[in-house]
Amino acid sequence: MNFETEATRSLERITAEQPLIHQITNVVVTNDSANLTLGFGALPVMAYAPEEVAEMAAMSQALVLNIGTLSAGEVEAMVIAGRSAADHGVPIVLDPVGAGATRFRTESVLRLLSELPVTVLRGNRGEIGALVGSGQVRGVEAVGTEDPRSVAEAAVERFGVVTAVTGAVDVIVGDGRVLEVVNGHPLLGRITGSGCMATVSIGIFLTAGEDTVLQTALALAVYGLAAERASSGDPGPGTFRSRLLDEVAAASNKGVVGLRVSEANNGRS
Amino acid sequence: MNFETEATRSLERITAEQPLIHQITNVVVTNDSANLTLGFGALPVMAYAPEEVAEMAAMSQALVLNIGTLSAGEVEAMVIAGRSAADHGVPIVLDPVGAGATRFRTESVLRLLSELPVTVLRGNRGEIGALVGSGQVRGVEAVGTEDPRSVAEAAVERFGVVTAVTGAVDVIVGDGRVLEVVNGHPLLGRITGSGCMATVSIGIFLTAGEDTVLQTALALAVYGLAAERASSGDPGPGTFRSRLLDEVAAASNKGVVGLRVSEANNGRS
Amino acid sequence: MNFETEATRSLERITAEQPLIHQITNVVVTNDSANLTLGFGALPVMAYAPEEVAEMAAMSQALVLNIGTLSAGEVEAMVIAGRSAADHGVPIVLDPVGAGATRFRTESVLRLLSELPVTVLRGNRGEIGALVGSGQVRGVEAVGTEDPRSVAEAAVERFGVVTAVTGAVDVIVGDGRVLEVVNGHPLLGRITGSGCMATVSIGIFLTAGEDTVLQTALALAVYGLAAERASSGDPGPGTFRSRLLDEVAAASNKGVVGLRVSEANNGRS
Repeated sequence: MNFETEATRSLERITAEQPLIHQITNVVVTNDSANLTLGFGALPVMAYAPEEVAEMAAMSQALVLNIGTLSAGEVEAMVIAGRSAADHGVPIVLDPVGAGATRFRTESVLRLLSELPVTVLRGNRGEIGALVGSGQVRGVEAVGTEDPRSVAEAAVERFGVVTAVTGAVDVIVGDGRVLEVVNGHPLLGRITGSGCMATVSIGIFLTAGEDTVLQTALALAVYGLAAERASSGDPGPGTFRSRLLDEVAAASNKGVVGLRVSEANNGRS
Repeated sequence: MNFETEATRSLERITAEQPLIHQITNVVVTNDSANLTLGFGALPVMAYAPEEVAEMAAMSQALVLNIGTLSAGEVEAMVIAGRSAADHGVPIVLDPVGAGATRFRTESVLRLLSELPVTVLRGNRGEIGALVGSGQVRGVEAVGTEDPRSVAEAAVERFGVVTAVTGAVDVIVGDGRVLEVVNGHPLLGRITGSGCMATVSIGIFLTAGEDTVLQTALALAVYGLAAERASSGDPGPGTFRSRLLDEVAAASNKGVVGLRVSEANNGRS
Repeated sequence: MNFETEATRSLERITAEQPLIHQITNVVVTNDSANLTLGFGALPVMAYAPEEVAEMAAMSQALVLNIGTLSAGEVEAMVIAGRSAADHGVPIVLDPVGAGATRFRTESVLRLLSELPVTVLRGNRGEIGALVGSGQVRGVEAVGTEDPRSVAEAAVERFGVVTAVTGAVDVIVGDGRVLEVVNGHPLLGRITGSGCMATVSIGIFLTAGEDTVLQTALALAVYGLAAERASSGDPGPGTFRSRLLDEVAAASNKGVVGLRVSEANNGRS
């Protein structure tokens, strides 16, 4: 499979169709996530009120749930939105920010995974590891030495959901396949919300094709490639943050030469 | 009327008096809105708690209400703040973000318009159209082909409030007049919150003169002119977002040559 | 005392230990505060839910409380988090944003000061003045002409807490000492959240040494020095905001030559 061709096709479809991406996300990254969505050519809508999330999710092309600054009320809204999404065939991406750091986070994510037909689960190895009983998290950062692929495979087995464990190498597991993405740059670790934006990217790309594992990998690769381009000249993190958005928006025109996606040797998943 | 002279006078008055702009706004644009307010030389205060909004609105020079990520509790706070503003002669600007997308949004805006003496209503043609029964909205974006002037005129007739419908051409209708503004740049459509910031600009300019229609047009024109200047060299949206704030802050010194405001041929409003 | 040597040591320790900084802060500055924390080499975690703040504070190295957009529920979460921090020896920094502007803000801060063993209180002279009965505030800005040192000394006497009153000169009072910092730049007054970020800087530096007054002064000096460097070439506020983060992140490598901290002639505190 030619991943560059596939990514180009996805970007074209996103730009042409301007999918609406309903996001219930944390207050740290709200602005960046909305700007990233516009950068890709999609339309963001942030809507959290239980009175409206079912309607908003129903008219959207993807639903992104992110527990970064969750509250009990927000989890309820996520359940309502998620059920509406499920009823209308809208894919759901879940970002378990900080799962493992507190019981409230871990339990909220497990509840969402149990009550909603999540399409893709994306987290770092600490967060996803925590959900399968092995990860370590400090705040919202992964610590420890779990192997990302093992963690992803355990999550696929336990939750039956395509899982992306991101880090120096991103591993996407599901539907009997394993894809790996090595695009990205260490500067992503110096800005807040870089993981959350990866999750939003996945939500956007899921609207561009039926192959969930593939679109997830393409999203992470294009986003990582934009980060590589934005890191040119080794800017500080403040400047990098602005340029990252510039490069996401430029991806359609610049093309995606440099994408590093590969099919991994598949043991069992 | 020389609009450049009027705009210069407004900017001078804002800089000299540093009006306090109380904003109850959405979580996507909070930071950008506060920075824009400082950029114009005014003082932002974001205060949402029902326990304090009456006090804060009373001491402010303008109140900006924006339902972008509304909740039932936030609507209550808006009503309390708005009544206090009304009692103290503080102008109120209302941004019906996403009206028409969900019933909760539409009904909340209609309630605010019915319970508060809103000074200016600003939205895109989809949002304002939805309030008068004609618009189409996807998330928070206008779709459809309503004529902005017709939409604005219908809102003036129905709600008795000065109405600004913004887009490629901004149309401001009220007090028996129609003003049009063509300043602006397509890059505004590539960053989140550009409409919300237009609304904040109106709130700021309302403190600089009694002529509501005029100050609204000047606000949109100066903001649009800053966007034109920020788009020099065709930056990406991330860089544009930073430069937009730079250019808003530079408007007082650079002056406003290039303002494109005109009195439209007035049919009936 | 060689303040540059001390600041270098603190920066090295922060970079090496990556302290986790739990922040319950306002929605205006959440993103900037998290990015600043990463810039210094520490790890931010924003967690607000009463269900999880005790756990999160217990595993953190500092707790930063900021009432900029407080709600009744958020104050409760701050109390829970603060008690947990106290139980686990985690220092607490409190930013009384807008104290004096509304009774709700003033009373909430007084409650937090009475119920929690706050380590450092940081505000402008209007906010701190309001807490000791003398300050004037418009929104969240200091007005009036209080002497910052007198205000800080009054707060130390009344609340028994190290107090930093920031402005053109930052005055830090406590433990029988007075330190002054003159690093900084007027552009800090043109962006929102510059005071809130100063408070976060203090929280981070408190993890690097036992001498509270010293670490508070070093934090404000390094942050102010970064602002001076970011103001090179007199950028607009939008560009300055990005560069400020760049310069905070560069401080470890560039060093801190230019720090302007001094022990003030000590009258009584």
